[in-house]
Amino acid sequence: MALIVQKYGGTSVGSADRITNVARKVKTFRDRGDDIVVVVSAMSGETNRLTDLAKSIMPEPDVREMDVLLSTGEQVTIALLSMALQQLGCEARSYTGAQVNILTDSAHSKARILGIDEERVREDLGAGRVVVVAGFQGMDEEGNITTLGRGGSDTTAVALAAALTADECQIYTDVDGVYTTDPRVVSGARRLERVTFEEMLEMASQGSKVLQIRAVEFAGKYNVPLRVLSSFQEGPGTLITYEEDGMEEPLISGIAFNRDEAKLTIQGVPDQPGIASSILGPIGEANIEVDMIVQNVSADGSMTDFTFTVHRNDYQNALDMLRKTANEVGAREVAGDNRIAKISLVGVGMRSHAGIASTMFAALAKESINIRMISTSEIKISVVIDEKYLELGVRALHNAFKLDQEPVASTEA
Amino acid sequence: MALIVQKYGGTSVGSADRITNVARKVKTFRDRGDDIVVVVSAMSGETNRLTDLAKSIMPEPDVREMDVLLSTGEQVTIALLSMALQQLGCEARSYTGAQVNILTDSAHSKARILGIDEERVREDLGAGRVVVVAGFQGMDEEGNITTLGRGGSDTTAVALAAALTADECQIYTDVDGVYTTDPRVVSGARRLERVTFEEMLEMASQGSKVLQIRAVEFAGKYNVPLRVLSSFQEGPGTLITYEEDGMEEPLISGIAFNRDEAKLTIQGVPDQPGIASSILGPIGEANIEVDMIVQNVSADGSMTDFTFTVHRNDYQNALDMLRKTANEVGAREVAGDNRIAKISLVGVGMRSHAGIASTMFAALAKESINIRMISTSEIKISVVIDEKYLELGVRALHNAFKLDQEPVASTEA
Repeated sequence: MALIVQKYGGTSVGSADRITNVARKVKTFRDRGDDIVVVVSAMSGETNRLTDLAKSIMPEPDVREMDVLLSTGEQVTIALLSMALQQLGCEARSYTGAQVNILTDSAHSKARILGIDEERVREDLGAGRVVVVAGFQGMDEEGNITTLGRGGSDTTAVALAAALTADECQIYTDVDGVYTTDPRVVSGARRLERVTFEEMLEMASQGSKVLQIRAVEFAGKYNVPLRVLSSFQEGPGTLITYEEDGMEEPLISGIAFNRDEAKLTIQGVPDQPGIASSILGPIGEANIEVDMIVQNVSADGSMTDFTFTVHRNDYQNALDMLRKTANEVGAREVAGDNRIAKISLVGVGMRSHAGIASTMFAALAKESINIRMISTSEIKISVVIDEKYLELGVRALHNAFKLDQEPVASTEA
Repeated sequence: MALIVQKYGGTSVGSADRITNVARKVKTFRDRGDDIVVVVSAMSGETNRLTDLAKSIMPEPDVREMDVLLSTGEQVTIALLSMALQQLGCEARSYTGAQVNILTDSAHSKARILGIDEERVREDLGAGRVVVVAGFQGMDEEGNITTLGRGGSDTTAVALAAALTADECQIYTDVDGVYTTDPRVVSGARRLERVTFEEMLEMASQGSKVLQIRAVEFAGKYNVPLRVLSSFQEGPGTLITYEEDGMEEPLISGIAFNRDEAKLTIQGVPDQPGIASSILGPIGEANIEVDMIVQNVSADGSMTDFTFTVHRNDYQNALDMLRKTANEVGAREVAGDNRIAKISLVGVGMRSHAGIASTMFAALAKESINIRMISTSEIKISVVIDEKYLELGVRALHNAFKLDQEPVASTEA
């Protein structure tokens, strides 16, 4: 008998029939004796419907009232799912975020969870009930309704699992697990049996959209085993945990990519202390997030080139700022490119293996793909290339690292 | 400067445009310096939509979960109305029933208000905000969401007005006040400037559907001046208060009627102590509500006839039971009629004036309308007649008591 927290997203609860399907799935776990807490999102389409309604009244809706409005979405789902469970003979009780004291800060529309009082949930579990909790929402210290922002239901599930020290937190979604890369790009992409929290974080931040970053961070911090599975098919999904001692990890777990970036370069900048902050300072003040940063110094050390990437939406804005800065610091030239893409290799095995970068560069060179920027972390290598080579590059790397095959080095059970 | 609680029903907030109209109305009060608390219902149609959704999942929905579900209806409206007010430059803040601690008993779907903690509302009013509260809902001592049942938003408004000792509780609806009788039946029906709580209670219980009985009771108990007005037209509406000393009340305030009743008679019952309870006992146990009761005793006192009315939906059921009782007590005959209607004259002036009943009977007789039953209270006379004479009877009485004219005896300001 285990204590399991399950989370079902908007598509999984998108209609009365689908809600009944979720109830059936929950009941099979309950029937084998597990204690189940279910976290649900709003029915798909509902958040958009409510947002449109709000905007027709107030074009830039007040954030406090928007949270009051949107939180009704999950409240509808918890009531309906509890009914569906009861209809199947499964005792169930629903709670809003406020009712189980999901305490957050007061940052409406992007609040952070500060604590959960899980006593009430424990009581219901003890009485043999399935507990259904509204995801995405909580309340601040003054009792105002808050929401956690996009994908916040994942965070609710992980936070509840941590508070209850659950055996597993299962995130049901419309894909059946985490893949070595996007199967729409590489047909040989393979579902991973498991990945580490660190790998999942790198993959999420590099463009893989299976899980919300904050939920993975939270799960890692509180060591909650996290499993991604499909709402619609059977299967074990992908387990996200810590590296286990004595287990040899595969070199590369996956390839993430995204095309949302743009590259900016300022060339011939007199190299002097503080030059990086004079260049990036104004960008940061304008709330533009910078992803990769690369700096080269000329042979004589007097001049430097400085390149960085931003979200494609911020490209024009950042370019205008950079031109202004170039004038001020006496730089030679400013250039930019918003037709780039980024590919990232992710794997904890990199830590202990050399030669991965050169294999990567060779595989890309073989396809005549020019690398524009390189950035590395302990478990990740990212390269920026021309956007048109993205699919070709991802396939080449998937082949080069044989990601379509089960890793032979793994001692996984 | 006054403190006013306003309540707007589902039709008044039935669309984004109508919500903005309500906001405009609220703002005109605010602009002249009044403190305003607004209570709103769910947008019209929303409760039915949610109920259908629930029934498609659980044909007889669990009452606790049904309250969780339905309470989202008003929560949507409070957020949207607060936005509409802010859009007009009027500071506003919304609260669910639970957030302003509308404490109820645990009778889901028909809970009763036990108390309100109005501190938070006062703080917001003090800070110059309009406070928007969800009607129809509260929470019980354990924090479960409850609803007050049909028309419960009126009760929420009155309870808030009582807790805040408001100067007036205004109920905005789709009619512009309380009329001497239904204008669809009598074209000369006249809007009343004021009626007493007692008259309003009698009129509501006799079929006038302007206000919910519980809200009127509550207003009477806590002496909250209640005003019924139209959401869509200007006008003073009808004020419902206590009788004022030294004020001569009109004889008759209004004529209520309904066609929802059926009449049952048991004849030739041996008259002995306890016979009424042997007849009505089984009816009451079956949860059938009895309205009027009339008993006649035969000349020699040995036999009695017993007649009563029930809701038309309960007619067949009650008739079957009565036949069984007739056998048991040795009664001669059982008869019934479900094509009847009831007309009630209501007026506190009756207390001090004789001759009203005879004027009433004469007016009906003049139209050859046969009276089948009569029942009186201190401020009401009800008669049962054949349903087909209903409109004729109401018009005849409206004329006989000159209700189309302002009462000359009144010293109203």
